[in-house]
Amino acid sequence: METTLIRQMYKEDSSQYLGKEVKVSGWVRTVRASKNFGFIEMNDGSFFKNLQIVFDDSHENFKELSKLVISSAIEVVGKLVETPNSKQPFEIQATSIKLEADSESEYPLQKKKHSFEYLRTIAHLRPRSNTFSAVFRVRSLLSFAIHKFFQERNFVYVNTPIVTASDAEGAGEMFRVTTLDLEKLPKDEYGKLDFSKDFFGKETNLTVSGQLEAEAYALAFRNVYNFGPTFRAENSNTTRHAAEFWMMEPEIAFADLNDNMDLAEDMMKYIIRYVLEHAPEEMNFFNSFIDKGLLERLQNIVSSDFGRVTYTEAIEILKNADKNFEYPVEWGSDLQTEHERYLAEEVFKKPVFVTDYPKDIKAFYMRLNDDGKTVAAMDLLVPGVGEIIGGSQREERLDILEKRMEDIGIEKESLWWYLELRKYGGVKHAGYGLGFERAVMYLTGMSNIRDVIPFPRTVKSAEF
Amino acid sequence: METTLIRQMYKEDSSQYLGKEVKVSGWVRTVRASKNFGFIEMNDGSFFKNLQIVFDDSHENFKELSKLVISSAIEVVGKLVETPNSKQPFEIQATSIKLEADSESEYPLQKKKHSFEYLRTIAHLRPRSNTFSAVFRVRSLLSFAIHKFFQERNFVYVNTPIVTASDAEGAGEMFRVTTLDLEKLPKDEYGKLDFSKDFFGKETNLTVSGQLEAEAYALAFRNVYNFGPTFRAENSNTTRHAAEFWMMEPEIAFADLNDNMDLAEDMMKYIIRYVLEHAPEEMNFFNSFIDKGLLERLQNIVSSDFGRVTYTEAIEILKNADKNFEYPVEWGSDLQTEHERYLAEEVFKKPVFVTDYPKDIKAFYMRLNDDGKTVAAMDLLVPGVGEIIGGSQREERLDILEKRMEDIGIEKESLWWYLELRKYGGVKHAGYGLGFERAVMYLTGMSNIRDVIPFPRTVKSAEF
Repeated sequence: METTLIRQMYKEDSSQYLGKEVKVSGWVRTVRASKNFGFIEMNDGSFFKNLQIVFDDSHENFKELSKLVISSAIEVVGKLVETPNSKQPFEIQATSIKLEADSESEYPLQKKKHSFEYLRTIAHLRPRSNTFSAVFRVRSLLSFAIHKFFQERNFVYVNTPIVTASDAEGAGEMFRVTTLDLEKLPKDEYGKLDFSKDFFGKETNLTVSGQLEAEAYALAFRNVYNFGPTFRAENSNTTRHAAEFWMMEPEIAFADLNDNMDLAEDMMKYIIRYVLEHAPEEMNFFNSFIDKGLLERLQNIVSSDFGRVTYTEAIEILKNADKNFEYPVEWGSDLQTEHERYLAEEVFKKPVFVTDYPKDIKAFYMRLNDDGKTVAAMDLLVPGVGEIIGGSQREERLDILEKRMEDIGIEKESLWWYLELRKYGGVKHAGYGLGFERAVMYLTGMSNIRDVIPFPRTVKSAEF
Repeated sequence: METTLIRQMYKEDSSQYLGKEVKVSGWVRTVRASKNFGFIEMNDGSFFKNLQIVFDDSHENFKELSKLVISSAIEVVGKLVETPNSKQPFEIQATSIKLEADSESEYPLQKKKHSFEYLRTIAHLRPRSNTFSAVFRVRSLLSFAIHKFFQERNFVYVNTPIVTASDAEGAGEMFRVTTLDLEKLPKDEYGKLDFSKDFFGKETNLTVSGQLEAEAYALAFRNVYNFGPTFRAENSNTTRHAAEFWMMEPEIAFADLNDNMDLAEDMMKYIIRYVLEHAPEEMNFFNSFIDKGLLERLQNIVSSDFGRVTYTEAIEILKNADKNFEYPVEWGSDLQTEHERYLAEEVFKKPVFVTDYPKDIKAFYMRLNDDGKTVAAMDLLVPGVGEIIGGSQREERLDILEKRMEDIGIEKESLWWYLELRKYGGVKHAGYGLGFERAVMYLTGMSNIRDVIPFPRTVKSAEF
C-alpha cells in the first residue's frame, strides 16, 4: 500500500481518503493512553498539523504503544474517519501500528515550552518543534517565491563567486580563505607573507556581495539575479547580524532608479502573497503566537502603493516631527532605525522608498545625481522593521566612477574588469539587495536572526 | 512607449507586434552599411536570437549609425515587419535609433571565433557571446528546474552552513576560514596556535557537503533538499574539477535505496525535459556547434527506464567484456570512468544505477548491507560522462555507525549531534548528491567545468 501524507489529506480533496484504509508514517508528538485505548498525535513532516491515531487493546502491542516515547517513528495502517465534534477534521482508527525507529526517554525536545535560546543548542532537533517547523518551511517557500518571481520575468539566475579577491563594498570586514599551513607560513625574500603560495596564488576572502559580478551579467542578459550566501566578519553580537547569511540581488539594464523601485515593490508583494497562500497554517501560527499584528501588517504591504520620498524631504519631515529621537536628525547623516520606523509607521503608514541619499554615506558605485551631492540610491523602509532593501542606479560614466574610487581610495587595478564594463556598451543599469534572513524575519515575526537560519554562524559560534 | 523584448516577439503571439510601431533596446552585434542604408543585428539580452534593424539615410544620424561599434547600446523605435524571404521571421524598419551607450573599437569580443581559453580571460564579457549566452541561460533554467521539481513535491529547501567546523566526507581537502592576523598569530601557553581567538572560537573550514545537516532536517520535514556552493581544496587541474562548485543534495526519510533511485531518476528526467522545453534555441545551438549527439542522448535519457545493477554484477560484466581496459577490473576497487562509460554506453545503452559498493571504497555514513561487505550506495552512470549522481541509504543504526567511525578514525565528539539523530526516531533515510556543474556540462555538451561557471575558481585562479 502507498503511504499517504498528512498534507495530502488536508490539501487534496479529503473525500478520496475518508472511510478508506490508508497507510501513514511519521514521528510521535504525544501519546495518551488509558487501560483500554489510546491516542497518538503524529507528525509526518509533510505538514504543519498533526494527525490523531486511535488505537485500543485489540492491538497485540497495545502495552508498548501506550509507552511510546516522543519522537519515535511509527508506521500506521488504519481507516481515516471524520470527527465532526473534534478540533481536528479526521483521525485514523488504527488496525496496525509498527515501530519504525525507537527514541530515548531523555529526548531533549519534550512537550513543553522551551526558550529559543535553549532550542538553539539543539539546532539539529529544533525543526521538529512547531515554531521552527513553521519558520523553516516559510524560509523554503520564500526562497522559491523569489526564484519564481524572477524566472517568470525571464531573469537569468547567476551564481557569483563565493571566494573572491575583491571587496565589493570597499569596506566590509571579511573572512580570509586560505590553504596555507599556519604553522609554516611561506615568506618571500623580504620576509613578507608570500600569498603566491596560497591555493589561488593571491589573498582571497569570502564575498560580501555578488553585485559587481551581477552587473557584468546584466550587461549581457539585461535582467539577472543573484541569490546565494554572503559573509561579514563583523564582531557584532546583535539579533540582526549573522556572519553568514543569504542575499538576493537583482540587476537590471536599460533601467533607472524608478524601474528599480518598481521591481522591488512588485517583488515584495509577490513573495508575501506567495507565502500567505502556500503556508496559511504556519502564518496563522506566527500571527497567534509570535507576532500578533503580523498578518494585518503583511496584508497592508500587499495592498498599498509604496510611498516614495527623497532623503532630503525625509530629513525635513523628521526635523518637523513632534517626536524626540535618540539620534539627531541632520542632512548628511544616515537614517537610524528609529527614524526609518517613524517614517514607515507614523508618517506613511506603509512601506516607503527613501531616495537620493548624500553621496558620502553611500557606496562608490552609486550614480551621482546632477546636484553633485546626492546619489541615485534607494532604501525600502517597512513598518515594524525599518530598512529591508537597499539599492541604487549604478554609476555608468567611467570618468565619474574612477574619480569617486580615487576620492575614497579604492584600488582601480583589482576592479579593472568592472571599469571595463563602462567602456563597452555600459548602458544605465540598477539593482538592489534583499537580505534574505531579514525578509524571513519580517514574514514570520521572529526577532532573532539566529532563529531563521538552520545552523547559524555568529561570533564565537559555528556549532553543527 | 513601453519597450518590447525580443523574447516577447518570438515567444508570444507575434501578430500583436507585427505591422505596429515598437520600441526596443539592446546591444549591437554587427553593423553592415552601404551608402544609403544599413542593417544592425541587435541582441537585447532577453533572447538567444538577435533582431535585425534596418535604417537608411533619411536618419539624420545615418553616418554615426553606419560606424556604430560592436557592443554599443542603442534604443530603436520603428515598425516590426515580416520578412518572409529571410532567415529571420521579422525585422524592424527603424524611424529612430538613439545611442544609449558607446563602445570602444578595441572591444575584446569581436565578431570572430575566439577560443574558450581566451574567453575565460574576459569572463566579464563572455556571456555576450552566443556560446556563453546559451550556457548561462541553461544554467539558470536548470537551477530553477531543480527547485521546481522539489517544491512541487513539497520538499523543504534547507540552507546548510557554508562555514563549518566538521568535515562531512571525513576526507575532503578543505579551505580554512579565519580572521586571525597571519602576521601575528596568537599562541596558547604551550606555543600552539590558539584558535579560541579566531572569529568562531575554533578552527573552521568551507563546507564540502551539506548532507549531514540535511539529514537532521529530513528527520523533521521528511523530504528536504539542499542546493548551494561547496568547496574542495584539491590541487587538481582537470577539466572536471573546480575549487568552488554548487551541489544539490536531497534527503528523504522513511525511504530506502530504491526510493532514492526512483527520486533521482524522476528528477533527472524532469530537469532535462524542463530545459529542452524552455531553451530550445540554446539546445539546438549546442547540438549543432558543441556536441552533435547531444539532443539524441538527452531524449534517450528522458524516455528510458534507467538500468539497475549491483556493483558485484557490474564487475562480472566488466570482467567478461570483450574490451581492454586501462585500469584493472577487480572486486573491491572503485570503477574508473572508462568502466562507467562502458557500462552506460555499451552494455545498458542508457543511464544505469550501480548499487551496493564495497564498504571500504565508500563513505562512513552509508548503510551496511547484511553481507557485512557492501553498503547501500548507488551511483548513477550516464552515457557520455560516467558518474553524475552519487548517493546512499544512510546508516541509521547507532552502534554500527559508531563502529564504522571508529574503524575509519573519525572523531565522534565533533559529530555528537549527527549521532544523536540515531537516538531519537532515527528512521531509515537516504539521499544523494548531484554536482550541479557536472549536470550543466551534461546538458550543454561543454567539456570544461571552467566554461559552465560564471567566474570559476580553480588552482591559482580567482580572477574577477
